[in-house]
Amino acid sequence: MPRFDYQEVLREIHQEVQPLIGRGKLPTYIPALAEISPDKFGLALHTVDGQASHVGDSSERFSIQSISKLFSLTLALRLRGAKTWERVGREPSGTSFNSLVQLEYERGRPRNPFINAGALVTSDILLEHLDAPQDNYLDFMRHLSGIPDLRHDEEIFQAEITSAYRNRAMANLLKDFGNLSHAVDDVLEFYCFQCSIMMSCQELAASCLFLANQGVSSLCGEVLPRRKAKRVNSVMLMCGTYDAAGDFAFRVGLPGKSGVAGGIVAVVPGKMSLCVWSPALNEVGNSYAGTKALELFTTKTRLSIF
Amino acid sequence: MPRFDYQEVLREIHQEVQPLIGRGKLPTYIPALAEISPDKFGLALHTVDGQASHVGDSSERFSIQSISKLFSLTLALRLRGAKTWERVGREPSGTSFNSLVQLEYERGRPRNPFINAGALVTSDILLEHLDAPQDNYLDFMRHLSGIPDLRHDEEIFQAEITSAYRNRAMANLLKDFGNLSHAVDDVLEFYCFQCSIMMSCQELAASCLFLANQGVSSLCGEVLPRRKAKRVNSVMLMCGTYDAAGDFAFRVGLPGKSGVAGGIVAVVPGKMSLCVWSPALNEVGNSYAGTKALELFTTKTRLSIF
Amino acid sequence: MPRFDYQEVLREIHQEVQPLIGRGKLPTYIPALAEISPDKFGLALHTVDGQASHVGDSSERFSIQSISKLFSLTLALRLRGAKTWERVGREPSGTSFNSLVQLEYERGRPRNPFINAGALVTSDILLEHLDAPQDNYLDFMRHLSGIPDLRHDEEIFQAEITSAYRNRAMANLLKDFGNLSHAVDDVLEFYCFQCSIMMSCQELAASCLFLANQGVSSLCGEVLPRRKAKRVNSVMLMCGTYDAAGDFAFRVGLPGKSGVAGGIVAVVPGKMSLCVWSPALNEVGNSYAGTKALELFTTKTRLSIF
Amino acid sequence: MPRFDYQEVLREIHQEVQPLIGRGKLPTYIPALAEISPDKFGLALHTVDGQASHVGDSSERFSIQSISKLFSLTLALRLRGAKTWERVGREPSGTSFNSLVQLEYERGRPRNPFINAGALVTSDILLEHLDAPQDNYLDFMRHLSGIPDLRHDEEIFQAEITSAYRNRAMANLLKDFGNLSHAVDDVLEFYCFQCSIMMSCQELAASCLFLANQGVSSLCGEVLPRRKAKRVNSVMLMCGTYDAAGDFAFRVGLPGKSGVAGGIVAVVPGKMSLCVWSPALNEVGNSYAGTKALELFTTKTRLSIF
Repeated sequence: MPRFDYQEVLREIHQEVQPLIGRGKLPTYIPALAEISPDKFGLALHTVDGQASHVGDSSERFSIQSISKLFSLTLALRLRGAKTWERVGREPSGTSFNSLVQLEYERGRPRNPFINAGALVTSDILLEHLDAPQDNYLDFMRHLSGIPDLRHDEEIFQAEITSAYRNRAMANLLKDFGNLSHAVDDVLEFYCFQCSIMMSCQELAASCLFLANQGVSSLCGEVLPRRKAKRVNSVMLMCGTYDAAGDFAFRVGLPGKSGVAGGIVAVVPGKMSLCVWSPALNEVGNSYAGTKALELFTTKTRLSIF
Repeated sequence: MPRFDYQEVLREIHQEVQPLIGRGKLPTYIPALAEISPDKFGLALHTVDGQASHVGDSSERFSIQSISKLFSLTLALRLRGAKTWERVGREPSGTSFNSLVQLEYERGRPRNPFINAGALVTSDILLEHLDAPQDNYLDFMRHLSGIPDLRHDEEIFQAEITSAYRNRAMANLLKDFGNLSHAVDDVLEFYCFQCSIMMSCQELAASCLFLANQGVSSLCGEVLPRRKAKRVNSVMLMCGTYDAAGDFAFRVGLPGKSGVAGGIVAVVPGKMSLCVWSPALNEVGNSYAGTKALELFTTKTRLSIF
Repeated sequence: MPRFDYQEVLREIHQEVQPLIGRGKLPTYIPALAEISPDKFGLALHTVDGQASHVGDSSERFSIQSISKLFSLTLALRLRGAKTWERVGREPSGTSFNSLVQLEYERGRPRNPFINAGALVTSDILLEHLDAPQDNYLDFMRHLSGIPDLRHDEEIFQAEITSAYRNRAMANLLKDFGNLSHAVDDVLEFYCFQCSIMMSCQELAASCLFLANQGVSSLCGEVLPRRKAKRVNSVMLMCGTYDAAGDFAFRVGLPGKSGVAGGIVAVVPGKMSLCVWSPALNEVGNSYAGTKALELFTTKTRLSIF
Repeated sequence: MPRFDYQEVLREIHQEVQPLIGRGKLPTYIPALAEISPDKFGLALHTVDGQASHVGDSSERFSIQSISKLFSLTLALRLRGAKTWERVGREPSGTSFNSLVQLEYERGRPRNPFINAGALVTSDILLEHLDAPQDNYLDFMRHLSGIPDLRHDEEIFQAEITSAYRNRAMANLLKDFGNLSHAVDDVLEFYCFQCSIMMSCQELAASCLFLANQGVSSLCGEVLPRRKAKRVNSVMLMCGTYDAAGDFAFRVGLPGKSGVAGGIVAVVPGKMSLCVWSPALNEVGNSYAGTKALELFTTKTRLSIF
């Protein structure tokens, strides 16, 4: 495989997706997301051998939203290990990210940690291990990213809590089935806090690099054992983009995790991590231009895992 | 049809169900229900021509629980009229009384006002019309029953609120679909209040008599127009005993509404209202001995509507 | 209650529904149904004390379609008795008449004998008891109706068999779950035969009279024991008009069974049987004008069972 | 990564799985599968650079069953191209391989070509393109495997057809939704024929090698364009092992496709193809010892794609 000039590849992609930026819809459930300019686009990558490339608005921070599910799972695996899987599965869901149907049929055991119900369980697990959950979580993210001033956005945080009816329904159903040990309000608050953390493409790509590097971060050493890191990648591929996971695997061919603010992180095992951001979403809730950019990336570089 | 000596019929039934009293299970989700003696049994009837008969513990009060759904629907129809049906259906559900599956598939429109989701919507409607909801509701029940000292049980009320995870899930899902206009907590509190009202078989039979009498109560005049009263009966027959409505219609052959504390009210259109109480429940959540007593009643009197 | 001149009532209804006749849609899955004039309307009633009234096209025969489910259940109860209920339930389905979803979740036990899956099971039961199923069934219908020349329509019969993909799916699923003992093709053929029997409103009303008369037919004596006849009525009320059973009970207030050719039979327990026919269907598959006519009937006569 | 002596690796695996061989259950729906010795175990691999290794019963033929779905998809993509995806999705199903629930909710569009409903659609597509479907399919498999005497087992073929009630239900439902253009019986027969083809681990590994080699077979040249081959791998990873796809990706980390006779093929993109066989199945229907053997393989060789 030829050595690529990744900076050049990113520049090409930026150019080619230009007509697609802004296509799709902004989420409307909280003002802070609805008001962001749909014209933003950033793309960054970090390789395991130390290269970094980026284009566009790659240093502008946005709320990481569901990308936090990836970090929460990582932290749960560090603190609780394989026992995490006793309370949440690792199968794709075949339904929307916020459906209660499967959760009821399967008696309160979420299909995987990357749908909302699963992330609520992960958050509940973390609450058992963290003394000051919000501070500890931020510390973990600062450690992972190497960015000491990482913080959350209070306005987004509060808005998420206020509008979280569907998530609140889910948390109460989990509680009813005995799969939450903390108070519903505490779990929801912590979950919304995670979603409201602000990071840029560059920072997110750096923070995921350990997943491309057998669990080891160049910034902070071993984040997860090799085998666990691989397993996070497998769950991410199977479940990271909701009910479009199959299509994402088909088009992009990389483990990836998306968020409702338009960010998507992706991992090329053994090689690099990427993060793309563009706020307008396709009909399944993933960044429209972002998904296309990643598809172009694997087409150009032939780095699909398949 | 021969004139029955109803007191004698009730006495026979009381004797025949004796071996069944206590069979089944007490609900365990709140202490106040789990601690009631399963040996209680009361049965009372009021006829439209003024007779009253009763046997057993028919003057002992118990929490009316889901039987309140019947009075809430009645009150909603008085205050909101046929517009009530814009927000809740009148079809049997084919699923458990507290399932979220159908509610999600049908986008937040409960199948009928006698499953929990439907009663939450009815409660929300009532909140729009009542200044002091709890007081107003008690006043309505006092008016209907002619019992000035009717009250709720504070311990049961608080316990219901605390343990209502499934109902809270449902209320949040309704809110998410835009089918609740008040705050989730307010709706749930009002709903739990209704469930915690304490009444006896005699009082409940008297309170339902208007449904047997074309909407007119001998105590307080027209409660509902004739046609609406008939429609309440039809919804009660189709949906009043949850996922066992078909079996109840098949065995008992009367419109009936059950509650988790073991009460069941039933209506013989044109003739009488009944209430039976026995706390131990069959596997679908209706009073075991109570259902059997009503079945014996229609067998002996041939008063099934079919 | 005043004595009604039923002929006059029917005449009024005929007049009032006039603007609604033809409203709705003809079924299109077989040509023989799609080509019938949507302007047909017939209405007939037979009382237990021997009166008969009718208006419109009440002597014109149409295919009885799902109304046959009522006669098949009756015949199964005669031949197999209460054991019939071991293989089919009596609960409303909460879903469409031809859905496979509930059948799969409930492992091949149809909710009731009035949805297609249930009627396939009833047909399978009948096949165990009948030597010459088609002839025997016709004989039973001749016996019940007192019409010696009753017959099926061969064209409709063959067309139903050919187009029965959904029913064939259902029958195979039942077979897979072990709830059919005969060959799928034999069961389907017999089921389609039943649907293709041709009868008029007058003939159908006469054939159902036993259900209004405690199981006894004036033409042919006891068809079912009193108790079983009442139970057929209860199942008919709960399940006879598919996913609109609640609305039908709410508006009409009588046990009724509809067919896709536009016929509906209804029973006033203790008093009379009716049959209405008008081919154009409402969105849930029941005759549009027919449903309205029955609603007018109970409004005018106050004969709702509620 | 060190150069492995694959023959040695396979030998180790064979030894380590020894205690697991025979654990699980044989399928019972047709005698030919129920009578196979559960003690069989074979494992074979072919690398893109021409190595071949095998252990155990790797030259014994078994019916390929659902592994045929992989070849049918390949053939459909050759004949119909990307238009194949107009009639079948590529998302994991989140339900059992033979469920009708999702198929009904999604109106006859199967989630992916690796569940039964999807393979029926693929078969229907192939019927449009093949003159002598069974012969043509065998020819394709002979071409792919380089084995001129490949054939099906007539006894298994006939038994599959006879017992295929669930598949027949599915095919009829697809037909009802308009997603089959050929007669149900023709599609089912062709589908069962594919399942009854007999191949050994060595032959199956050889036949899949093109998927590891960018679409090119060393035996017969380009089977699929590079990009399409990668996409088949992605669909295989997401959907190849039914409702356990997530767990398979988690444990094994390779695209794989299993069959009910106990075979599983797997692909290491860019490197090799494997096939394992052991007839006793785990509770989700994949070979018990076979799954474990593949898990040991990626653990030992670190060849997981993650």
